Amino acid sequence: MKVSIIGGSGYAGGELLRLLLNHPDVEVFQATSESHLGEYVYQQHPNLRKQTKLKFTSRQVLEPCDVLFLALPHGEAQKNIDQYAGLAPKIVDLSADFRLHDQTLYKKYYESDHLAPAWVEKFVYGLPELHRSEMNTASYISGVGCNATASILSLYVGIKYGFLDTTQPIFVEIKVGSSEGGASANPGSHHPERSNVIRTFAPYGHRHTAEVMQELGLSNVHLTMTSVDLVRGALAAAHGFVKPGVTEKDIWKAYREWSESEPFIRLVKDRRGIYRVPEPKILAGTNYADVGFDLDPDTGHFIGMAAIDNLMKGASGTAVQAMNLICGFEETSGLGFCGLHPI
Amino acid sequence: MKVSIIGGSGYAGGELLRLLLNHPDVEVFQATSESHLGEYVYQQHPNLRKQTKLKFTSRQVLEPCDVLFLALPHGEAQKNIDQYAGLAPKIVDLSADFRLHDQTLYKKYYESDHLAPAWVEKFVYGLPELHRSEMNTASYISGVGCNATASILSLYVGIKYGFLDTTQPIFVEIKVGSSEGGASANPGSHHPERSNVIRTFAPYGHRHTAEVMQELGLSNVHLTMTSVDLVRGALAAAHGFVKPGVTEKDIWKAYREWSESEPFIRLVKDRRGIYRVPEPKILAGTNYADVGFDLDPDTGHFIGMAAIDNLMKGASGTAVQAMNLICGFEETSGLGFCGLHPI
Amino acid sequence: MKVSIIGGSGYAGGELLRLLLNHPDVEVFQATSESHLGEYVYQQHPNLRKQTKLKFTSRQVLEPCDVLFLALPHGEAQKNIDQYAGLAPKIVDLSADFRLHDQTLYKKYYESDHLAPAWVEKFVYGLPELHRSEMNTASYISGVGCNATASILSLYVGIKYGFLDTTQPIFVEIKVGSSEGGASANPGSHHPERSNVIRTFAPYGHRHTAEVMQELGLSNVHLTMTSVDLVRGALAAAHGFVKPGVTEKDIWKAYREWSESEPFIRLVKDRRGIYRVPEPKILAGTNYADVGFDLDPDTGHFIGMAAIDNLMKGASGTAVQAMNLICGFEETSGLGFCGLHPI
Amino acid sequence: MKVSIIGGSGYAGGELLRLLLNHPDVEVFQATSESHLGEYVYQQHPNLRKQTKLKFTSRQVLEPCDVLFLALPHGEAQKNIDQYAGLAPKIVDLSADFRLHDQTLYKKYYESDHLAPAWVEKFVYGLPELHRSEMNTASYISGVGCNATASILSLYVGIKYGFLDTTQPIFVEIKVGSSEGGASANPGSHHPERSNVIRTFAPYGHRHTAEVMQELGLSNVHLTMTSVDLVRGALAAAHGFVKPGVTEKDIWKAYREWSESEPFIRLVKDRRGIYRVPEPKILAGTNYADVGFDLDPDTGHFIGMAAIDNLMKGASGTAVQAMNLICGFEETSGLGFCGLHPI
Repeated sequence: MKVSIIGGSGYAGGELLRLLLNHPDVEVFQATSESHLGEYVYQQHPNLRKQTKLKFTSRQVLEPCDVLFLALPHGEAQKNIDQYAGLAPKIVDLSADFRLHDQTLYKKYYESDHLAPAWVEKFVYGLPELHRSEMNTASYISGVGCNATASILSLYVGIKYGFLDTTQPIFVEIKVGSSEGGASANPGSHHPERSNVIRTFAPYGHRHTAEVMQELGLSNVHLTMTSVDLVRGALAAAHGFVKPGVTEKDIWKAYREWSESEPFIRLVKDRRGIYRVPEPKILAGTNYADVGFDLDPDTGHFIGMAAIDNLMKGASGTAVQAMNLICGFEETSGLGFCGLHPI
Repeated sequence: MKVSIIGGSGYAGGELLRLLLNHPDVEVFQATSESHLGEYVYQQHPNLRKQTKLKFTSRQVLEPCDVLFLALPHGEAQKNIDQYAGLAPKIVDLSADFRLHDQTLYKKYYESDHLAPAWVEKFVYGLPELHRSEMNTASYISGVGCNATASILSLYVGIKYGFLDTTQPIFVEIKVGSSEGGASANPGSHHPERSNVIRTFAPYGHRHTAEVMQELGLSNVHLTMTSVDLVRGALAAAHGFVKPGVTEKDIWKAYREWSESEPFIRLVKDRRGIYRVPEPKILAGTNYADVGFDLDPDTGHFIGMAAIDNLMKGASGTAVQAMNLICGFEETSGLGFCGLHPI
Repeated sequence: MKVSIIGGSGYAGGELLRLLLNHPDVEVFQATSESHLGEYVYQQHPNLRKQTKLKFTSRQVLEPCDVLFLALPHGEAQKNIDQYAGLAPKIVDLSADFRLHDQTLYKKYYESDHLAPAWVEKFVYGLPELHRSEMNTASYISGVGCNATASILSLYVGIKYGFLDTTQPIFVEIKVGSSEGGASANPGSHHPERSNVIRTFAPYGHRHTAEVMQELGLSNVHLTMTSVDLVRGALAAAHGFVKPGVTEKDIWKAYREWSESEPFIRLVKDRRGIYRVPEPKILAGTNYADVGFDLDPDTGHFIGMAAIDNLMKGASGTAVQAMNLICGFEETSGLGFCGLHPI
Repeated sequence: MKVSIIGGSGYAGGELLRLLLNHPDVEVFQATSESHLGEYVYQQHPNLRKQTKLKFTSRQVLEPCDVLFLALPHGEAQKNIDQYAGLAPKIVDLSADFRLHDQTLYKKYYESDHLAPAWVEKFVYGLPELHRSEMNTASYISGVGCNATASILSLYVGIKYGFLDTTQPIFVEIKVGSSEGGASANPGSHHPERSNVIRTFAPYGHRHTAEVMQELGLSNVHLTMTSVDLVRGALAAAHGFVKPGVTEKDIWKAYREWSESEPFIRLVKDRRGIYRVPEPKILAGTNYADVGFDLDPDTGHFIGMAAIDNLMKGASGTAVQAMNLICGFEETSGLGFCGLHPI
């Protein structure tokens, strides 16, 4: 099966290339980059040296393929979605363009009108853990926001199993590595300035808030984003309250049931050892989301945690997982890397 | 004026030594360390090489002095406080021993009975920004918790100026560097494991919660602690709601008034540049607390932020500031270092 | 084919477990740890959670297997090598015990007499790039030193192709991450002390010098070790002079020929881009050694560079590569991970 | 005494501002920045918030002052040196423009003809440890290269005391932090790419080689530059051989004599503890150069080490030290910060 990638030179594109070049069920056919046209893909993605002789081609010369991945900046995919849909029967987008069904919400958070609103309904929100059954028959998959993914997974069990009191406000604090900002240098990403930071760059109003509200059906959820000194990884810690009478054991059972049923969800809640809570560093390169929780029995304060590699479970890994589902492959195909320790 | 330090080999002790050796109004008389007895202090604190020929002495041979600093592990100072009080008319403690006036709270968070409860009332909680006037006549100063300091300062304006709705729950997320764990190696501080972490080691129940409750008069405040990859520094981000009708401008005026009246408080809230919010990295070695805030006008979500160097404003710097006050020195004496950029 | 690991709780043991659990040709039978007896291996190696239900067993209950890996501290394997040889027809050691054929050299660098000198000759030095043909018929493989591996690979082409002037002294500067020090915490590995370091902990006399001398046949090679802030990775930069008349083009051809013939060697020497020279960070988790060089045409100063992941090509990866050879598997089997970028 | 700074918005300019604003003998009069004209200096240098209300002014409106600091990119100062000399009787340059007396060497390493060669002879090379007596009567001080400073100080004792065999080649390996690259972001300084690196960006041919040759009178010295993950700091390790018969004790005595006579040189050579060798991290913000050495008695391999903060002893700190000398101030004036530990 032939897959092509539009926008192959960024970090999400590079991660797609890494995964798809090693995927047993597909062949990478074309990868585009207008700014690196004609270069070997390993010149932008040095981990791919000796892995492939593929060169970046132009969007202008794309040929039909079986699955087309779109790894473009927000706002780009919607401009040419008709053309792209003519190239492939299945599309997996990674951008924010087809995530939000409510155009008011889209306009509030992305500050412009959507250029192809009719297309939005054809897309399934790209998180298999929430939309697996729809994906079995879908052709178009939207991207997921990395911070949205971590936030959703930190709260999902509480909502699915009904123990979280959603009438009270919920605050999600997300700490992220620098790869989330993409592959382009800017003053804030300059190493002497970005190293050692604890920088709350978005106290409120982060765009991914909209996805979290949509996917969890919450209206009173507040996201706060803080950069820390790390390249890959994001941890969401959600704060709320459980309903009266809910015990730690109830929550544990819910988490256990859910994590055991999901191939890429692991429950981390240990009493001993160094890795007692979900932690993103050991997830680098993997498609796992490690989830955990704690409950203050005196106050009912519930803390839901979810750790991911923002480029994997928060972007390209989940995109490949979704491709596996819409193509009828094994859901875990090509996503077997278990991660490194120490790292 | 002669000052001595009991417990001079740890990180707080080392920072005290750095500050006091360069303080214009005092002379460092003795510094104790039982485990490094007879060594030059610069062998434990390599930044002090060529600064002093002082050697660690034993607690057993302490002589009277004017001010005695206690930089011991929690639980130690209360064992011998009578003896220490016999050595010096003024004592500045850095531990948790004399911070909490409510013995029930002490027992809940420190899991033992206090050995010298009668002494507690003689101590003023060591944060000059809250207790300056009492310090002018006090002889005994308690330590401050580093995370408590950051948390208190992230919320103080909201409470002092009355715009924060304290009937709603307040969540404080604190991210901290590794020096907070002290100078002793342990499996969790091993560099391959501690590097690159985003590790929520205390989702709830951190001991400093008690101080925050006491000092701010709050009963529904929830602290969550997360380790990140940094040596020095802590950032608290407090989440709550403002009272109806409160505007950003109201809050701004309160912050401005307060920060302009305080020598070690700086308001950081810029629209441009890289350092638009309080950030601990540039505070290394300084006694500043940088504070800031944001307000979501749609929801009333208030985010109060406070950044400190946990060893300075969160421990030894504040201790020296308090000494300055109880001794009648200039409040900023010996605390002039403005910090480095980049770092 | 059944493989077992003695000493499975350290970093090299963990990396062996990761590789062998995902190896298509073997089954992990037993892994020992006396200090973590009965624990799940994922409690020490959190990346293996949801990968295996294997538990650590004791050395005392080891059963026969096909290949036995020894991942013990130096000096341990030689104590019981007869017993271990009774358990498996093939042994891959990772320690320094069977690397050095010259007992005088062993004694100088390891400061004790070897306990099983007769066994040494049965072992092939574990670097396939130098000993591939011997490995095809060997049963016992010695470990390789991580720094020795980087050093050897930074110089090997110059010696193999004869362009390096070996009559002049050669200096090798190796910069290393903290995982090299193993999984046990110590004062020097404490995060506040180990972070941000440039620490030349072994200006001369590092034990791996002996291996480099032996494997390259050099008597005047000088190794210097420097710790930097990184978890995984080592870079060796060797300094020497080329023989008169040697040009950059000559060297280039030699490097190209050699790197193209080796599955795990990549030549990195680009004029553009960020990754123009070998760099260890993108090798984390891979078995690649990236090599490169430069030549000052004015002086004949040759700089040979080799970057590796010290736990992979410098330890467990090479051990698995050697196992593949002595077992007749595909040399690259189980070693397909290509590494991450960015990281 | 009034001092002004041309080029105040870069990292060296910011460090000059920090030092001079806190210097007891001078007053900062003007600081220029064309790109940040009219901004408060603390907007570029956030550590200066609450320290000064100074704003950046234009070069066009500079008024006469007593000492003029030039912190411009290489090649700029020489364009307008006549004009600058008209503004102040004393000039301290930080660039490479007036360092090299041999115009051939200048042209080789800076690839252009010098625009004001007649001015070069009026400048004293800015390292007080080598040119203190000349500075007592000088009016013009050149900059020092940060890597040159570390390299020179790693070799100086060996040459001054005559124990180094300068007939044999000398290799200097310098590891550096990211602040050395200046304040402007570029693809190589992008945090996801620059973090975790061990990147030998200049195997040979670094421009600072010329200064080292000039100042030490060496023709066979080879510099190699490697970036590591650190913001501030540089460590040079020089490799060479001692003359026959030289013992460690001889070298020790030379180092001790020299370091005791120099206010900013510390000898670090301990048998115990974590900080046994010179290490840059604890020098952040200080003007110290920590030096050390080791000697392999079997081979005569001498390793000379020098650690500095590249922005301080390698740039602005040394510039202020030189100003102190040419102005007749105490040599250590304004340079008293002793550095932080841990950091």
